[in-house]
Amino acid sequence: MQLALSSWPEVEAYLARSTGIVIPIGSMEQHGPNGLIGTDTLCPNIIAREAADEAGFLLAPPFNVGNAQHHLGFPGTITLRPSTLIAAMQDWISSLVRHGFRDLYFLNGHGGNIAPVTTAFSEYYAAWSLRGEPCPVRLKLQNWWELPGVMALCREIFPVGEGMHATASEVSVTYYGYPGSVKRVEMTPKIAPIAGFTDAADYRANFPDGRIGSDPSQATPDKGARIVAAAKTALISEVSAFFGANDRLEAHG
Amino acid sequence: MQLALSSWPEVEAYLARSTGIVIPIGSMEQHGPNGLIGTDTLCPNIIAREAADEAGFLLAPPFNVGNAQHHLGFPGTITLRPSTLIAAMQDWISSLVRHGFRDLYFLNGHGGNIAPVTTAFSEYYAAWSLRGEPCPVRLKLQNWWELPGVMALCREIFPVGEGMHATASEVSVTYYGYPGSVKRVEMTPKIAPIAGFTDAADYRANFPDGRIGSDPSQATPDKGARIVAAAKTALISEVSAFFGANDRLEAHG
Amino acid sequence: MQLALSSWPEVEAYLARSTGIVIPIGSMEQHGPNGLIGTDTLCPNIIAREAADEAGFLLAPPFNVGNAQHHLGFPGTITLRPSTLIAAMQDWISSLVRHGFRDLYFLNGHGGNIAPVTTAFSEYYAAWSLRGEPCPVRLKLQNWWELPGVMALCREIFPVGEGMHATASEVSVTYYGYPGSVKRVEMTPKIAPIAGFTDAADYRANFPDGRIGSDPSQATPDKGARIVAAAKTALISEVSAFFGANDRLEAHG
Amino acid sequence: MQLALSSWPEVEAYLARSTGIVIPIGSMEQHGPNGLIGTDTLCPNIIAREAADEAGFLLAPPFNVGNAQHHLGFPGTITLRPSTLIAAMQDWISSLVRHGFRDLYFLNGHGGNIAPVTTAFSEYYAAWSLRGEPCPVRLKLQNWWELPGVMALCREIFPVGEGMHATASEVSVTYYGYPGSVKRVEMTPKIAPIAGFTDAADYRANFPDGRIGSDPSQATPDKGARIVAAAKTALISEVSAFFGANDRLEAHG
Amino acid sequence: MQLALSSWPEVEAYLARSTGIVIPIGSMEQHGPNGLIGTDTLCPNIIAREAADEAGFLLAPPFNVGNAQHHLGFPGTITLRPSTLIAAMQDWISSLVRHGFRDLYFLNGHGGNIAPVTTAFSEYYAAWSLRGEPCPVRLKLQNWWELPGVMALCREIFPVGEGMHATASEVSVTYYGYPGSVKRVEMTPKIAPIAGFTDAADYRANFPDGRIGSDPSQATPDKGARIVAAAKTALISEVSAFFGANDRLEAHG
Amino acid sequence: MQLALSSWPEVEAYLARSTGIVIPIGSMEQHGPNGLIGTDTLCPNIIAREAADEAGFLLAPPFNVGNAQHHLGFPGTITLRPSTLIAAMQDWISSLVRHGFRDLYFLNGHGGNIAPVTTAFSEYYAAWSLRGEPCPVRLKLQNWWELPGVMALCREIFPVGEGMHATASEVSVTYYGYPGSVKRVEMTPKIAPIAGFTDAADYRANFPDGRIGSDPSQATPDKGARIVAAAKTALISEVSAFFGANDRLEAHG
Ligand code: NI
Ligand code: NI
Ligand code: NI
Ligand code: NI
Ligand code: NI
Ligand code: NI
Repeated sequence: MQLALSSWPEVEAYLARSTGIVIPIGSMEQHGPNGLIGTDTLCPNIIAREAADEAGFLLAPPFNVGNAQHHLGFPGTITLRPSTLIAAMQDWISSLVRHGFRDLYFLNGHGGNIAPVTTAFSEYYAAWSLRGEPCPVRLKLQNWWELPGVMALCREIFPVGEGMHATASEVSVTYYGYPGSVKRVEMTPKIAPIAGFTDAADYRANFPDGRIGSDPSQATPDKGARIVAAAKTALISEVSAFFGANDRLEAHG
Repeated sequence: MQLALSSWPEVEAYLARSTGIVIPIGSMEQHGPNGLIGTDTLCPNIIAREAADEAGFLLAPPFNVGNAQHHLGFPGTITLRPSTLIAAMQDWISSLVRHGFRDLYFLNGHGGNIAPVTTAFSEYYAAWSLRGEPCPVRLKLQNWWELPGVMALCREIFPVGEGMHATASEVSVTYYGYPGSVKRVEMTPKIAPIAGFTDAADYRANFPDGRIGSDPSQATPDKGARIVAAAKTALISEVSAFFGANDRLEAHG
Repeated sequence: MQLALSSWPEVEAYLARSTGIVIPIGSMEQHGPNGLIGTDTLCPNIIAREAADEAGFLLAPPFNVGNAQHHLGFPGTITLRPSTLIAAMQDWISSLVRHGFRDLYFLNGHGGNIAPVTTAFSEYYAAWSLRGEPCPVRLKLQNWWELPGVMALCREIFPVGEGMHATASEVSVTYYGYPGSVKRVEMTPKIAPIAGFTDAADYRANFPDGRIGSDPSQATPDKGARIVAAAKTALISEVSAFFGANDRLEAHG
Repeated sequence: MQLALSSWPEVEAYLARSTGIVIPIGSMEQHGPNGLIGTDTLCPNIIAREAADEAGFLLAPPFNVGNAQHHLGFPGTITLRPSTLIAAMQDWISSLVRHGFRDLYFLNGHGGNIAPVTTAFSEYYAAWSLRGEPCPVRLKLQNWWELPGVMALCREIFPVGEGMHATASEVSVTYYGYPGSVKRVEMTPKIAPIAGFTDAADYRANFPDGRIGSDPSQATPDKGARIVAAAKTALISEVSAFFGANDRLEAHG
Repeated sequence: MQLALSSWPEVEAYLARSTGIVIPIGSMEQHGPNGLIGTDTLCPNIIAREAADEAGFLLAPPFNVGNAQHHLGFPGTITLRPSTLIAAMQDWISSLVRHGFRDLYFLNGHGGNIAPVTTAFSEYYAAWSLRGEPCPVRLKLQNWWELPGVMALCREIFPVGEGMHATASEVSVTYYGYPGSVKRVEMTPKIAPIAGFTDAADYRANFPDGRIGSDPSQATPDKGARIVAAAKTALISEVSAFFGANDRLEAHG
Repeated sequence: MQLALSSWPEVEAYLARSTGIVIPIGSMEQHGPNGLIGTDTLCPNIIAREAADEAGFLLAPPFNVGNAQHHLGFPGTITLRPSTLIAAMQDWISSLVRHGFRDLYFLNGHGGNIAPVTTAFSEYYAAWSLRGEPCPVRLKLQNWWELPGVMALCREIFPVGEGMHATASEVSVTYYGYPGSVKRVEMTPKIAPIAGFTDAADYRANFPDGRIGSDPSQATPDKGARIVAAAKTALISEVSAFFGANDRLEAHG
């Protein structure tokens, strides 16, 4: 059940069954020579949409631009300053809590979001803690590639060249979701370098084509399908546990 | 050409042809008994995607949550505080300008965004004006229903009950884009009341089911198709003029 | 009754009769070769002061600096960044609401304020809407030139060269209010150009002497007197309706 | 020469003679049983206007709402949060500096502004200091009652009951400037108490009618005239010295 | 009793005896050729620690970086922008108030903090005043050199060259507290100049070695010991009066 | 070499040798029945001070209050809202960079700081990345307990009851640094529970005495000495590598 495709009476009915919601959160940033700029938003959205259809939980629209300052050296990247991201998340959370949502599960597609999203959670809790009132809301951040079993599968499929950015797995997931956007590009070098980075200039100097440690020319829709299937199952299991025993989710007929 | 589905080398190549980009901007808010919560984001996105495919301009991902405080009385609505919206738009604009984009055309789906987006533009220009440096960027906001010819067509299709919120037209556009989400609901009263409003409580008191002046039970995918076709043509014409004579857009093959 | 010239016991007594207040809001910005920099603040203040004297409503001091970034290419212009304007308006509103004011009528003198003031209203309402508490306050923005009958009169007096900025009408209103500041300047060209604009540099390039579409050399105190008389009457009527039936305003003896 | 009553070419001409400007800064706050809510804005404005007429310096419109949180227990008081005041002052200063003003002299009417205005100056300088660029601007805050000779005169005129808030002197200055607003009220007790205070509730508890240590029933327009005359002379002398030897001010003909 | 060296049960027990706390507040900024960069934080901390040991009140960790923009021309200086300082103080105050502290006594070591800290107090009170709720908290700022009797002693010890920044007294206090950091440097000129200043560049131009009006080569640990002893006694007396009759402080055994 | 105990000429001389600095960053928060509220600030400060003495690098004063909202249920805890922490870190970093520091190594004592400090780094880099200028500064965050070899030693010393908050190790380190503050308290239960948490109320409900998974009654100064010795050596090695080959640190004579 997708929030964007639901009417308010449908959401009202859902809230009578469950106070949980899943929110994909990603980034618009370069993903190497053959990866899509939307990769980090598309991946959790693809996985969560299938899971929502199967398990009946409510899926919010994606928080589609994240913290991507280090990718700004490559055209197409869009970032929020972390302080803006924190402000925007307060508003998303406050809006949902206003309606009665209590269990907010953010499925994340971008490593660079982990620190600012965790910080945004602290900012939200801090308002309650400083007032001395118990906060009735639980906020959870889960990276899709850390869903139980997923990373093991990715490494099984890509024993070499999975990498850390523009990974073979995430590109496969987007190719599965958007087969019309498959791009065939030779990688030079075959496997990208691995290093640290600071700002956008430093990142581009270290990683001239944007990849870190990966060979995403291995990506195919079929491999993406396997990853999505595994991630979907794990997500349903995690979400069911997180939302709690009282919630009664209904699968999409 | 969609930014989210492009690679950075593709965006780099695009920038050699054009410095223009179209950004759908909408809202997540109730749209009456049978309208989708994502309506205001979906409409400009549906129209702009078809136009981008045909005319070859670059389409950004939607700025999908806007200023919807007055709809918070209905479950599912998500708002940014206007000050957050302004901050987030500075970041989107600054990111795109950083890459060389100069002509940013925001296609808007929500009346409540007009003031804050216009204000966000002023905020951006003000930084240049206070520094005393000429701003090389042009920002334009266009409501999709005010594209040349569109409103006349909507009134022709819906001579009665087009309305102001949860309009028959916008619901039709989303039904065209998402036929699986068509919802058949009897409207009571047939045509919703018309009034002013302030905050969410006032809005809900004045408009118990969320509609203003509309009868969206008239909405169908076919009617939406006609509106989208007209809007697409008008948008291509407007965007071409806005981007300027030097830009060389290439239609999607 | 002017707030700035009242004592607190007088305001307390007023609040027992009415919870309404009128707040002029304007700008400090260039108004062409013969217009006053304070025009947009002076106009609503002149009109509202006469109306307040006649009808007995309470008049706040003017919010005298607004959103004028595009005029910064001309010496003397002062602007608030829109985000500052929004913050300042929260404080004005919160202060007045704290005392029991509930109906705040902003009489505006500057087109560039419309979007940010409307946005500031949304910011105020959003705080209530997100908390889920009904907001007891009504905020209204009215441009003085859009008071019923005023624009028709302006066009009657100035059939040619009324214009959009540094208009013949607004200059006349200030000349009526400040006859010692009448400035006689030849306009070249007689009627200023009309165009769009973005930042201050763009504005100055498009409008070398600051005017848009106007010939304010036609302005005289007498013409201003006619406009003020019409605007005053319309304002009293609007304010009376806005404040509501229970308010008992007392004319200035 | 008043900025609000000048045209931009007049300001441009002024800037060729002088880069200095005087900005009255005050407050909208209760001033006891017979004092005007605008007292703190009116006083520096009255004094500076006469001085500007005589000496030819440029006078900005007043920064008319200041830091008055402690007076919010009395109807009519309007405050900026200090953080808003600081933001607004950055914008006023940046606007003026953009035009070439370099010597900004703030004539203050409100003790509660001293700390936040001084802090706003630090905020402005800090931006230059952190960038490591020399700031070309000088900012000065002067309380009108501390202009050389003024306080001595006030104490001579009011040997008893001058007080600290709603002083006999400041009420006299406003009565001189606005003789139509003279209010005759018996004071009980004759002389108000003296104490410290924190927030608005504490202030009202300590000072039931708003005065601190004063008997402003002694105020008359004539006494105000004497104070204004002394303050005007002192201000001209101070401003001339502050603006520097190169400035050529021209008295109002 | 130092907060940083206490356990939470000890703080809980303290709160049953007293709701008062002392918070040293200082700066990290150059203090001339032989003064320590931490001088302004160290001085109030040294004094307050001895007083806390003797009198048994609770001592918070120092707010160790303050408003020092004007010293940024000298290596080692760290500043908060004043707006950051205000935000940080809201958090410190809110945290302490959350636990039941009601009487917060800030012992200040830096003149440049007076305005922003006072402003931060107004910001805190303003939140209560705008809500219309009585604030239960009292905030006090005291400069250590203005504790009763201290400045007279400093002038007695240093009849010449006490100065205004990098004073002989404050350097002595730090030499007493940190005898291992005594630095012997010849001063040229013997006594530093006196002038005003704006930003960091202006400050450095006016005061080439950082001192204002002082000869801190006179500083010794012994002289510092005398000053600390006097300040400690005065602080205990002031704090006892400020905390109120009901508090039962217990000296450190 | 401690910044707070240095003069500016000493810092200037240091900058000729090295552009690196170490900044302890911690928290003021409850650390169970026998742990010090300052534990997380004291630990990195104790370790870094010994290392700075031995290796000659410059040590900043501690950033002594961090993100501790979840501990506010226990008296004595002070937190910054994460957004304030981010703002304050921008100022610290900008100040140091202004002087020529380029390699900033933050030695952290608090798990709750990791996300907001990392986010603050992104905020700093984002300003450069959005401007499109290469950032010359490197920012590093290192938790003291993750210095090479330290955690292994802690587990060797405390095979049972090391825990996650109010750990036996961190309490030992503070007991070593402040032997006068050793507190002997019986722990009930012997080993504290392990769970997740959200806000302060949730934390206190889950961990009634503040500990997570630890038995800090095992802490002694001697054990702390061993940990500090290991951490000091590891820190010197890490800092030397981070600062780079060109830096010439000089040990404290
Ligand atoms: Ni990715
Ligand atoms: Ni809509
Ligand atoms: Ni105008
Ligand atoms: Ni006053
Ligand atoms: Ni000092
Ligand atoms: Ni700890």
